[in-house]
Amino acid sequence: MAPHAIPARSKRPFNRRLLLFRGGNCWNADELTVLAFGRPLPMTELEQRLFDELESLVLIDPHTHINPHAPASRTLADILGYHYYTELAHSAGMPKPYIAEAGIGPKERVGRLVEALGNLDNTTQVSWLLEICREFFGFDGVAIASQNWEALYDRSVAKMAEPDWAEQVLAKSRLEKVFLTNEFDDPLEGFDTNRYVPCLRTDDLVFHFEKPETRVRLSKSVSIELEGVATLREAIGRLFTRFTSRGARACAISLPPWFSPHKVSPADAENCVEDAISGAPLTAEQSVLLSRWIFWTLAEFCADHKLPFDLMIGVNRRVYENGVYQGQDLFDMRVSLIQYKDLFNAFPQVTFPISVLGHTSNQELVSYAWIFPNVVTHGHWWYSNIPTYIEFDTRARLEAVPRNKQIGYYSDMYKLEFALPKFRMYRRVLAKVLANDFVVGRGWSETQVVDLGRQILRGNVERIFKI
Amino acid sequence: MAPHAIPARSKRPFNRRLLLFRGGNCWNADELTVLAFGRPLPMTELEQRLFDELESLVLIDPHTHINPHAPASRTLADILGYHYYTELAHSAGMPKPYIAEAGIGPKERVGRLVEALGNLDNTTQVSWLLEICREFFGFDGVAIASQNWEALYDRSVAKMAEPDWAEQVLAKSRLEKVFLTNEFDDPLEGFDTNRYVPCLRTDDLVFHFEKPETRVRLSKSVSIELEGVATLREAIGRLFTRFTSRGARACAISLPPWFSPHKVSPADAENCVEDAISGAPLTAEQSVLLSRWIFWTLAEFCADHKLPFDLMIGVNRRVYENGVYQGQDLFDMRVSLIQYKDLFNAFPQVTFPISVLGHTSNQELVSYAWIFPNVVTHGHWWYSNIPTYIEFDTRARLEAVPRNKQIGYYSDMYKLEFALPKFRMYRRVLAKVLANDFVVGRGWSETQVVDLGRQILRGNVERIFKI
Amino acid sequence: MAPHAIPARSKRPFNRRLLLFRGGNCWNADELTVLAFGRPLPMTELEQRLFDELESLVLIDPHTHINPHAPASRTLADILGYHYYTELAHSAGMPKPYIAEAGIGPKERVGRLVEALGNLDNTTQVSWLLEICREFFGFDGVAIASQNWEALYDRSVAKMAEPDWAEQVLAKSRLEKVFLTNEFDDPLEGFDTNRYVPCLRTDDLVFHFEKPETRVRLSKSVSIELEGVATLREAIGRLFTRFTSRGARACAISLPPWFSPHKVSPADAENCVEDAISGAPLTAEQSVLLSRWIFWTLAEFCADHKLPFDLMIGVNRRVYENGVYQGQDLFDMRVSLIQYKDLFNAFPQVTFPISVLGHTSNQELVSYAWIFPNVVTHGHWWYSNIPTYIEFDTRARLEAVPRNKQIGYYSDMYKLEFALPKFRMYRRVLAKVLANDFVVGRGWSETQVVDLGRQILRGNVERIFKI
Repeated sequence: MAPHAIPARSKRPFNRRLLLFRGGNCWNADELTVLAFGRPLPMTELEQRLFDELESLVLIDPHTHINPHAPASRTLADILGYHYYTELAHSAGMPKPYIAEAGIGPKERVGRLVEALGNLDNTTQVSWLLEICREFFGFDGVAIASQNWEALYDRSVAKMAEPDWAEQVLAKSRLEKVFLTNEFDDPLEGFDTNRYVPCLRTDDLVFHFEKPETRVRLSKSVSIELEGVATLREAIGRLFTRFTSRGARACAISLPPWFSPHKVSPADAENCVEDAISGAPLTAEQSVLLSRWIFWTLAEFCADHKLPFDLMIGVNRRVYENGVYQGQDLFDMRVSLIQYKDLFNAFPQVTFPISVLGHTSNQELVSYAWIFPNVVTHGHWWYSNIPTYIEFDTRARLEAVPRNKQIGYYSDMYKLEFALPKFRMYRRVLAKVLANDFVVGRGWSETQVVDLGRQILRGNVERIFKI
Repeated sequence: MAPHAIPARSKRPFNRRLLLFRGGNCWNADELTVLAFGRPLPMTELEQRLFDELESLVLIDPHTHINPHAPASRTLADILGYHYYTELAHSAGMPKPYIAEAGIGPKERVGRLVEALGNLDNTTQVSWLLEICREFFGFDGVAIASQNWEALYDRSVAKMAEPDWAEQVLAKSRLEKVFLTNEFDDPLEGFDTNRYVPCLRTDDLVFHFEKPETRVRLSKSVSIELEGVATLREAIGRLFTRFTSRGARACAISLPPWFSPHKVSPADAENCVEDAISGAPLTAEQSVLLSRWIFWTLAEFCADHKLPFDLMIGVNRRVYENGVYQGQDLFDMRVSLIQYKDLFNAFPQVTFPISVLGHTSNQELVSYAWIFPNVVTHGHWWYSNIPTYIEFDTRARLEAVPRNKQIGYYSDMYKLEFALPKFRMYRRVLAKVLANDFVVGRGWSETQVVDLGRQILRGNVERIFKI
Repeated sequence: MAPHAIPARSKRPFNRRLLLFRGGNCWNADELTVLAFGRPLPMTELEQRLFDELESLVLIDPHTHINPHAPASRTLADILGYHYYTELAHSAGMPKPYIAEAGIGPKERVGRLVEALGNLDNTTQVSWLLEICREFFGFDGVAIASQNWEALYDRSVAKMAEPDWAEQVLAKSRLEKVFLTNEFDDPLEGFDTNRYVPCLRTDDLVFHFEKPETRVRLSKSVSIELEGVATLREAIGRLFTRFTSRGARACAISLPPWFSPHKVSPADAENCVEDAISGAPLTAEQSVLLSRWIFWTLAEFCADHKLPFDLMIGVNRRVYENGVYQGQDLFDMRVSLIQYKDLFNAFPQVTFPISVLGHTSNQELVSYAWIFPNVVTHGHWWYSNIPTYIEFDTRARLEAVPRNKQIGYYSDMYKLEFALPKFRMYRRVLAKVLANDFVVGRGWSETQVVDLGRQILRGNVERIFKI
C-alpha cells in the first residue's frame, strides 16, 4: 500500500476523481496534487464539481456570427481561418499575402498557418484550437505542428463530412440555440429560426448610411423609396417587423469609442437624412447627427417591439489598414458609459445588454448595471475575452451587479466548433470564482452557487431575450 | 482516533482553532480544510491570526455621513433604506414608486425591500446586511426572505429601542470616534464633538453657489452680507473658524471628473463672484471660474487652519435622473490626478487625503502619493468599495506608497451599524494581503505586519487628522 | 522520527530543498510549509524549480541608464541616491534641502536617507535595497536602520573599492550585456560597446529642439550648420551613422501622453524648422508640428538603419516642480495607442518595442501587439514596475501576444547593482505565472515553460535587437 504516492498527471486534467486511501480516510488525487506541487491546482476538487455542474448545463449562445446555412466547419481551414489565427500568425511575422493568397486549397492554407503556431502556442486562442482538435477530432498531441497536422487534417475532414456534423457539434457542446447576427437585408429564410435565432445587426445603417450601397440595400429589402426622415423611419420599421416576425430576439450594434447617442432635433434629422439620400457629401457634424438619429430611431423601434438592444461598445475599425481580413480593428480605452447617459434615461423600457471591449471599462459597466435597471452586463468581448480579464471582471460583476442582470458569456463564434472551448474557458473561470469567492469565502452551499451559475449562464438569457 | 477526519464547516468561519493530533504533531482544522478542498481557504490560520489582531484594534472612522443626533438605526428600514439597497432593488426591477412610496411605515418598507433581496444576494452589499443582522440581531438564517424577515424585524426593533443602542453599536464595532460630514451651516451643537468629529463639507459652496439658497444659507450662518470677493472670503473664513473651534478635523468635498482646480486671477474672481451674488446668470466659463476660486479659497483656509482637505474625486451627479434617492450618481473613468497638479504644487503645507471613485484611477493615486509629500491615499470609495478592487488596490498601495501616507479605510456610512461589516470586509482583505505579500512573500514577522496594519488602520488617522 | 515537523523558516526563502521522509515517501519542506500555514507559499516547489531555471539564465538588459564610464556604485550613496529612494524619502516627509544638500559627503547622505527608511520599508523599492545589501554586502539584518547602517556602509565601501567591482556585479547578476541610453551627442568612446551597448536617446531632439543649447549640441556633434529641413535631416542622419557604427542597437524616446505622431507636410516642416533654427518663438501648433516632424524623421532613419525604435509612452515631466532630482515626473492615464496608429501603419519595417507607464494601458499594448506585426511588448516601466501590476500584465501578455513578440523585462537602472533585485523580482513573478497558468492550468511540461521563459527573458532580446 502506497497511499501517499503522487499520482501521475492524468491525461484529462478535469476529471481527477481517483480515490486513494490513507490511514482509513478517503483522499483523492487532487489533494495529493496539492501536496505534490505545494500549491493547489486552479481546478480543485470543489471547482471540479462546480465545473462539472456548469458543464452539464445546456445553453443558449446569445451572440455569434454563425452563418445558419453553413454553421459548422467543413475543413480545418474554416477553423484556422478564424481571424484570431490569421491575425496572430500575421502579427508573429507571417506575410499577409502568404496567409491570404487566393486560389490555394484549404489543406495548403492549413499547412501554412500551422507554420505559425509555434510562435502562438502560448495564447489562449491556440488553446481553443487544441481543445477543438482534441474534443472533436481525437487529436492527442501536445501541439499541432509540421509532423502531425496532415493526419489531423485528413481525419478531421472525414469527420466534418458526416451529414449531421453541425448537430453533432451542437450536441457535444450542449448548445440548444444559437443567436445570429444578421445583416438588415438578410431574408432570414431557409433555416430553422428556432435553432438559429435571428438578431438584427445595425452597424451599416448607423455608420454607413452615407454609402449608396447601404441605401440601395435598405430600399430593396423593404421595398420603400427613401426620400427623407419619414420614409427612412418607415423602412427601419419594416425591418423590425420582418425580423421580429421571423423570431428575432435582439437588435445589435458595435460602436466606436467616440460615439455618443443623443436625440436629434427634427430639423437637423431632416436636413442630414435628406442630404445623405440625395448623395450630397455630409459635413463631419452632419455625419454624426445622421448616425445619432438612425441610432435613436432603432432604440425607439426596440421599445415598440420589446427587443433588447445589444450594445458592443468601443471598437475602432480599420486601425491596422494592411491587416488580414477581420484583423484590423482595435480600440481606444478612453471611452465612458457616461456617453450613453441620455439613451439609458430616455429608454427605460428597453433592455441594453452591454459588452465593453476594454477591461478598463468593466468597472463602469458594473456600476451602470448596478444603478440603471435597463443596463445588463453581457459577456466578455474580444480583447477582453482571455482568462485573466474574464476572472477579474467576473469577480467584480458577481460582487456588485444584481444576479438577474448578468449574462455570463457568449461565444462570438463564426463556426460552431468554437462554442465548446470558449464556453469551457468561461465555465472554468466561473467555477473558480464561485468556489473561492462564494463557497469558501462566503460560506455558500454548492447548490446555491450552481444555481447562481445556472442563472448567469442560462436563466438570464432566457428571461432577458424572452425565449 | 480519526485525526484525519475533515471537520464539519464551522458556523463561524473565522475562528477555526480546533486542534487535532496527527502522528504526534499538532494540526489544526485549517490545514485539514486545505486538504479537504484541495485549495486553501482565503482565510487561513495565518490570515486568521492577522485578522484577529486587526479586528481587536479600536478605530477612528475618518469619513462617514452619520447624523450625530440620530447616529444609529431605529428600525431595519433605516438599514435597508441605505441607498445601496434601494438602488440595487430598483436596478433589479422594483419600481421606484413601490420603493419610495410616501406614508408607508418602516415595517412595510422593509417587507417590500425584502422582496428584492433574492436578486441581490450575490452582492457584497447584501453580505454587509446579513452580517449586521447576524452580529447585532442574532439572525442565523442563510438569507433574509419572506418567511423570516418579520421575526427579524420585530427582534431588531426591540434591540434598537434600547436606550444605549448607539453606544452598544460603537462598542461592538470597536469604534472610538466617527468623523462626520457636516453641511457648512450646521450649527454643530447638541452632540459630543469628541465622539462625533465635525468635518466641513463644501460641495454646495463650490458647485452650488449660484443657487440663491446656498448664498442665503451662507450669509445667515456667518452673519455676513455677501457683496463680492472680500465678503465671500470673510464668510468662508468664519466657517473655518467656527468649525475648527468645534473640533473639526478636516474639510471635505466630492468632485466631478471634469473639475480641475487652478488659481483664478483677482479680476476674474471679482467678476464671477459679483455676478453670482447679484443673481445674474453666469456663462459656463464664469461658472467654472467661480468654482475654481471658491475651491482655491478653501484650500487657502485649510492651510491657515492646518486642516487636511479630503478630496473625493470623480463623481458625476444625477446621471440616472429617475433613480431612487442617492441612487443617481455615476462616474466617468476619464479623469486624471494631473488635473490637480497646480493644487498639489501650490499647497505643500496642506495634506490631501484622496479618494478616487474609479479603480482605474488607483495607480495614479499610488503614483501621486509616492511623489507628492502632501498626497495621501484614503480608503476605497463607493464603486471601488468591493473586495475585488480593494484587494488589488491595497496590494499596489502597500508596494509603492510610504506606509505613513496610507489611510486604509473609512466606512462612508449613514448609520452606525454599517461600520462593523464594512471595516470587517476591509480587515479580511488586509489580513490576506499582509499574509501573502508580506509574511509569506517577503518574510516579515507577524509582529511586523500587524504593526503595519495598525498604522494604516489607526495610526495614520490619528497623525494625519491630528487627533 | 518526526517527519511531520514543520521546518523553521529557512534564511534564504528561495532554496527550500530539504527533503524529509514520511511513510517512505519523499516530502519536502515546501509541502510542509503549505501544511503549516494552511496556504501555499507564493514560491512553491514547482515555482522554485522554474525560478531556479530562470535565475540561471544569463541575460542582456535591454534598457538601462548606466554610465559606462562608472557603471557600478562607489558607495551606498550611489545606491540610496537612486531617485526611487530620494523621492520616497521626500514624499514620506523628509525636506528636499536635507536630502539634496550640496557639499555633504556620501556617508552623511546615506545616514540621512536611512532615517527615512522606517516609513518606506513596506515598498518594493526598499526590498530591492535590502536584496542588494544582502547579496552584495553580506547584510543580514531585517532592516537598515540607525544602529546598523554605518557598519554596512563601511563594509560596502570596501567591497565597492575592489578594482573589478563592476565585473563582479555583472557576473553575480548573470548579465552579459547592458543597453545604455546615450544622449545624441555622446561620443560613445572609452568603453566596451560590446558589453555596454549604445542606444540613441532622442527626447531632447524631439521635445527640446527649440532650446538653443540643443541645436548647438547637435550642430557641434555632427559638424553641420543647421539651416532648415535638409540640414536638420542630414544632421540626424549623421547621428544614426555614428551610433550604428558604434554598435547601437536601438533608438529610444520617452513620450508625453498628449503626443501623437503624424507625418507633417513639407511646407509645414520647413516653416517650423526654419523658425526654430532662427530662434523665433514658435506657436503651440508649430511646436507640435516640429516635434512630429523630428519624430517622424527619426522613424525614417530607424527604417534605413534597421534599428528598433523603443517608445516609452506616457510620462508627464516636472509635474511636481519642487520634487527632488528625477522625482518630479508623473502621468495621465488618459492616453491611447490609437495615437500611434499612423506611425505603426507607416513603418511596417520598423520594430517598436513599447513600454507603457500606466498599468491601465497594458490591455491596449497587449491588443496592439496582438494585431500589429511591428509592435512588441517591452518590460514593465517605472510606476508599473511593482509585482502587483507586473503579475497581472504578464498574465495577459502571455495569454494573448505571440511569444516571439514579448520582451519580458529591463532594469531601467542607473547603477549595475540594481539589475539583480529587479530582474529577480520579475523572475519570481514570471515563475509564478508560468507555474500556475501554464504547468498547472494548461498542462505544459516544465521544459516547455522554461523554454517560454528563456525566450521572453533572453531569446527575443537577441533576435529583436539583432545581437
